[in-house]
Amino acid sequence: MRTVPISDADDPRVAPYVSIRERDLAGRSDGRFIVEGKVTLSILLERSRFEIESVFIGRSRLEPLSEILAQVPPEVPVYVAPQAVMDQVAGFPIHRGVLACARKGQPFGVEKLLDAETLLVLNGISNHDNVGAAFRNAAAFGAGGVLLDEQSCDPLYRKSIRVSAGAALWLPFVQAGQGEDHITGLQSAGFDIWAMTPRTTAAELHQLKPSAKTAILLGPEGPGLEDALIDRCRPVRIAMAGGFDSINVATAGAIALAYCHATSMAGDD
Amino acid sequence: MRTVPISDADDPRVAPYVSIRERDLAGRSDGRFIVEGKVTLSILLERSRFEIESVFIGRSRLEPLSEILAQVPPEVPVYVAPQAVMDQVAGFPIHRGVLACARKGQPFGVEKLLDAETLLVLNGISNHDNVGAAFRNAAAFGAGGVLLDEQSCDPLYRKSIRVSAGAALWLPFVQAGQGEDHITGLQSAGFDIWAMTPRTTAAELHQLKPSAKTAILLGPEGPGLEDALIDRCRPVRIAMAGGFDSINVATAGAIALAYCHATSMAGDD
Repeated sequence: MRTVPISDADDPRVAPYVSIRERDLAGRSDGRFIVEGKVTLSILLERSRFEIESVFIGRSRLEPLSEILAQVPPEVPVYVAPQAVMDQVAGFPIHRGVLACARKGQPFGVEKLLDAETLLVLNGISNHDNVGAAFRNAAAFGAGGVLLDEQSCDPLYRKSIRVSAGAALWLPFVQAGQGEDHITGLQSAGFDIWAMTPRTTAAELHQLKPSAKTAILLGPEGPGLEDALIDRCRPVRIAMAGGFDSINVATAGAIALAYCHATSMAGDD
Repeated sequence: MRTVPISDADDPRVAPYVSIRERDLAGRSDGRFIVEGKVTLSILLERSRFEIESVFIGRSRLEPLSEILAQVPPEVPVYVAPQAVMDQVAGFPIHRGVLACARKGQPFGVEKLLDAETLLVLNGISNHDNVGAAFRNAAAFGAGGVLLDEQSCDPLYRKSIRVSAGAALWLPFVQAGQGEDHITGLQSAGFDIWAMTPRTTAAELHQLKPSAKTAILLGPEGPGLEDALIDRCRPVRIAMAGGFDSINVATAGAIALAYCHATSMAGDD
């Protein structure tokens, strides 16, 4: 492991870690993303498809993290700084004292996802927690990947990665284009697309039988999917008690994915 | 509507709103709780079982909120202050500019819940977001109430209420005792208790048929339910993909509740 002591917050070697929050919110244009915390670092090292560029840890964390850090490739620098210097670089207190920087690299093309039996498709999901939770659920229920439109927020945002329990680092995803294009491409590839909606005329989820290839399509928090999209797919609702017509969007996805997974498993027996 | 202008942050009439965060975290001993935001205020006024004591709003919100405020009973004061005074009282910026204070009143006894067909039972849920999400899901899927042990956190904490989409204000709940007592009481009342667990020997949720009375039991984030509790109930798992054995606890509850609701609805046809 190549540790590099950092004593000055202006050291150019830790420049990718400067003002993390502000740059995350503005959107990074340098092709990099930041990972925070021990669990996500360990997934980044063990099973991610992304190239790690550097690790940045608080000095007091060097010893407790030695097992994970032993997996850092020898050519990747592990910057080590006193906690105060680290906080000064990042612009806020890094309580966990563990950061890493990786490169997004070449994005997958949509064809990468089309062999999957189950896909999750996110349309206009603008909340990082919801995108992260959607990835966690997609991974838990064996979806082969996630397709996101350009309006949805970035799964490689620091908080999305954490909420995804690291799934955003290894579950294949493609973020490109619009819902209209997604529907055309998925239908050509043989997917039955379940557009999740509170419409009372939609089919009730638990009475459906998943097809060999099923895509679960989730729309924006608040307004939900546009009618023009729903009308091109199979509208599917989750039965709810009177007076309620909405649950959290990632939760709706979890219910649909769990049902597809359990039903297709039962079919395999 | 009785509006009362407040110009001084030390005015004793707004004392219940002083240092909201600190007092929320320490736990209030005065039998009051605070509600934040327009949607939750509206539920507090329209369908909650709690007695509202006062409303506290930023001056600029008086006009846009006039419709909701018209529902405030005439004996309840609506304190109105400049935003800066309001923030100074609360101890942090109240972006939405809407607070209300209500009394917890006499708690329900457990018997209040025992007529329900479906109950949600929370054991050691120590995260306010998860308690709030669990209430939102319980309401969406028609559970008759929520039973919480003493270790779980307070559903009337400001953030829990908000995440619950206000369900914590109207869905009956009882927070008392321990998991052991809950199991004894629910079984005496005829409930089939589904203890949600990743145990591979547990029954798979989607292959079960809910009983006339079903209770969904959820355990702490991380460790999950204790074996001694699971062994007294029907262990139920949600099938997941290899390598994953855990999803968010409120999400697990949502999947089980949605399945019970859809299955019992289908049985009613």
